[in-house]
Amino acid sequence: MKNITIVGGGLVGSLLAVFLGRRGHTVNVFERRPDPRTTDVYAGRSINLVVSHRGWTALRAAGLEESVRSITVPVYARMTHDRDGRTTRLPYSIDDKAIYSVSRGELNRRLLSEAERSPNVTLHFDRRCVDVDLGTATCLFRESDGAAHSVKADLVIGSDGAFSAVRAKMMYGRFNYSQEYIEHDYKEIAIPAHADGTPKLDPQCLHIWPRRWFMMMGLANQDGGFTGTLFMPNTATPQAPGFDTVREEAQVRKFFAEQFPDAVQLVPDIAEQYLRNPQSSLVIVRCDPWVHADKVALIGDAAHAIVPFYGEGMNAGFEDCRVFAELLDELGDEDMGEVLRRYNAARKPNGDAIADLSLRNFVEMRDLVADPRFILRKKIEGRLQARHPDQWLPLYSQVKFSDIAYKDALREGQRHDRIMEQVLALPDIEARWESEEVERTALALLDRS
Amino acid sequence: MKNITIVGGGLVGSLLAVFLGRRGHTVNVFERRPDPRTTDVYAGRSINLVVSHRGWTALRAAGLEESVRSITVPVYARMTHDRDGRTTRLPYSIDDKAIYSVSRGELNRRLLSEAERSPNVTLHFDRRCVDVDLGTATCLFRESDGAAHSVKADLVIGSDGAFSAVRAKMMYGRFNYSQEYIEHDYKEIAIPAHADGTPKLDPQCLHIWPRRWFMMMGLANQDGGFTGTLFMPNTATPQAPGFDTVREEAQVRKFFAEQFPDAVQLVPDIAEQYLRNPQSSLVIVRCDPWVHADKVALIGDAAHAIVPFYGEGMNAGFEDCRVFAELLDELGDEDMGEVLRRYNAARKPNGDAIADLSLRNFVEMRDLVADPRFILRKKIEGRLQARHPDQWLPLYSQVKFSDIAYKDALREGQRHDRIMEQVLALPDIEARWESEEVERTALALLDRS
Repeated sequence: MKNITIVGGGLVGSLLAVFLGRRGHTVNVFERRPDPRTTDVYAGRSINLVVSHRGWTALRAAGLEESVRSITVPVYARMTHDRDGRTTRLPYSIDDKAIYSVSRGELNRRLLSEAERSPNVTLHFDRRCVDVDLGTATCLFRESDGAAHSVKADLVIGSDGAFSAVRAKMMYGRFNYSQEYIEHDYKEIAIPAHADGTPKLDPQCLHIWPRRWFMMMGLANQDGGFTGTLFMPNTATPQAPGFDTVREEAQVRKFFAEQFPDAVQLVPDIAEQYLRNPQSSLVIVRCDPWVHADKVALIGDAAHAIVPFYGEGMNAGFEDCRVFAELLDELGDEDMGEVLRRYNAARKPNGDAIADLSLRNFVEMRDLVADPRFILRKKIEGRLQARHPDQWLPLYSQVKFSDIAYKDALREGQRHDRIMEQVLALPDIEARWESEEVERTALALLDRS
Repeated sequence: MKNITIVGGGLVGSLLAVFLGRRGHTVNVFERRPDPRTTDVYAGRSINLVVSHRGWTALRAAGLEESVRSITVPVYARMTHDRDGRTTRLPYSIDDKAIYSVSRGELNRRLLSEAERSPNVTLHFDRRCVDVDLGTATCLFRESDGAAHSVKADLVIGSDGAFSAVRAKMMYGRFNYSQEYIEHDYKEIAIPAHADGTPKLDPQCLHIWPRRWFMMMGLANQDGGFTGTLFMPNTATPQAPGFDTVREEAQVRKFFAEQFPDAVQLVPDIAEQYLRNPQSSLVIVRCDPWVHADKVALIGDAAHAIVPFYGEGMNAGFEDCRVFAELLDELGDEDMGEVLRRYNAARKPNGDAIADLSLRNFVEMRDLVADPRFILRKKIEGRLQARHPDQWLPLYSQVKFSDIAYKDALREGQRHDRIMEQVLALPDIEARWESEEVERTALALLDRS
């Protein structure tokens, strides 16, 4: 059995500690923030996430499915809001499957407590990783009082997020790396519950205000309120406003009144929140390799920070943990060099794929869901899936409701795009989309592609 | 006038100091290595570079053309060496233009002395930049004895190379960044002169041993010897060996005997050198933006580290300096925010373009120069250029013998590719390439594209 240092006690680090502690390894988790179970590290921010199928697969493998299920809220559909306040409900699947909204803070607290139940796992808070010696798996941690101490292990796993300190130390070898900020930044807008605590919007839907070049979305919290997020370009273009042209109070009020009149009804202080809340950026991080010899591995956002538009960041990180544990099942716990090579080979292409898929879903959310042809395509795909479930599983379902490797889902999604482009070009498709002929054409294209 | 800190006293940093010192700015250059004029910092390594047209344009603008010309050697052609030792001479231009080989160490020493002639420029050696406060243009430098001191300026310019410390501090803002190692590494092989000091190869040629997936090249030194460089993939493929399969002495001897028999004659200890010399990697760095407000700018390799196959790394950095100085001429020296914005806008697209062009030239050097169709294309292009110099300037000439912006050269080169592909597809082109008809076809395609 090994002595393992996990840098970062967030969602992925704490789940990984559960997996590794149960195998009998000695696991030390070092987290730079205070213990979120005794300090409000999220400082009033109501960040929520969704657990989807592959998140559940990993939690089940760790024996935590029931423990986590109890703190989630199912979400069955998107609900779009147009400029006139009209809404359209678009179910996520044809068979009532759901994604599950959960508070990041609450989930983190639960996973930390589950990790701590293993006698082999020790949690250390207020420990900032300031150096890593990759060759000897030795980390230097600084405590909040300035004291530093060094911890040598057999293996260091960096689950320390998009700005990983472990990864920063890997930059000076033969290490490919990119960080790319997308043009859109975001601001959070809290959407309160009614005075009696009932929600103002359907909590079983993810709400989207798609405006082509920008969008707002809302996801239910357990208190009846919603966390709203406005995504908008930094810099205005001829087509759309940007955070740089929506700055003064008058501009802000005009912007919301024109673009999101129904949201103004729901959030009376929407302009004040916009003016007060910070503007945050979104970064995509890719790197290669994720491992260093038999000594260091990256996992979760540290290896693959992605944009949040598929809600898969945490689920991808949980899947990393499950695959890592399965490789230990298969290869044993002694030859970590081989385990890390195989982990890198298995996960790196999927990290790249979910990064691409997440960008793709941004276009879908902000633009396509308001497009009649996109809605028609969804209907045709739903019909194909219902009648030929073995042949046609829409991309969204592959990503959110299956364990199909992200890289295979991406490739299949691109194939679906090509086929549906031809199907949508059929004459009079709006009237004939439910015909046998359209179905036969789609399946024939599928056969041939 | 401003107080300017230049981090890095290499080729680009010292040339920039000449430009800025002459304008009356107070310039302090901090270099982490010792003074190369009193210490052999290149430790016996005989690195040489080529100065090409845009390098000269910048040196001329700085008043240094004659001073540098005297330490260079003109190179007029490529000379390819095939596996049987047969050579082919391919001139770089139709009108006897040359690129100029120079020793990095000697050029650096000369530029530092030129910078020091300005009373406004002070050089500091053995000063490693360990921190930069971007908001206040303050750098922290550590001396070799461990002492650290902080230097506040109006403007910090990072000319500190591919692994720039200044750039590292910019990573934590909204800063796009990528570092990408190419699959090929390299090893240097010294090719000695004859015992009487005369060169074993034509010193007015750049020698290439193109082997499709790998290659060796040789560039003359002033002492009659050549610096050879072997570029080869790290990992062997079915098509080609790699550094991982050429490791044992027997493998090395077999490799050189099969692939470079004429080089073995020139370099009797070639296998020993290969086994002894370090294997180095090649990285491409791109980032955006190159500037931070009115306080910090990156220049040269710190902003755009590229692969060495076009010999343009230094020339691109010198062009950065010239453009920066011209922007000061145009905009004055007071509003540095505007100068830096314009510098970024002018240079960033060209940094990207020369990175792409340099990769493209690697394919040309290791593969195409041995291809009869490529040689035929060069002949057709040479004829077009000779007869229609106002209409057809080959890409190589645009990059190496003009000041045409790299980004325009890249675009024009891509256009030439499309046209020449059609010209080479003409029936019986090998026999008819000098005909009027081929010429008319090429010009008509140029008109239409």
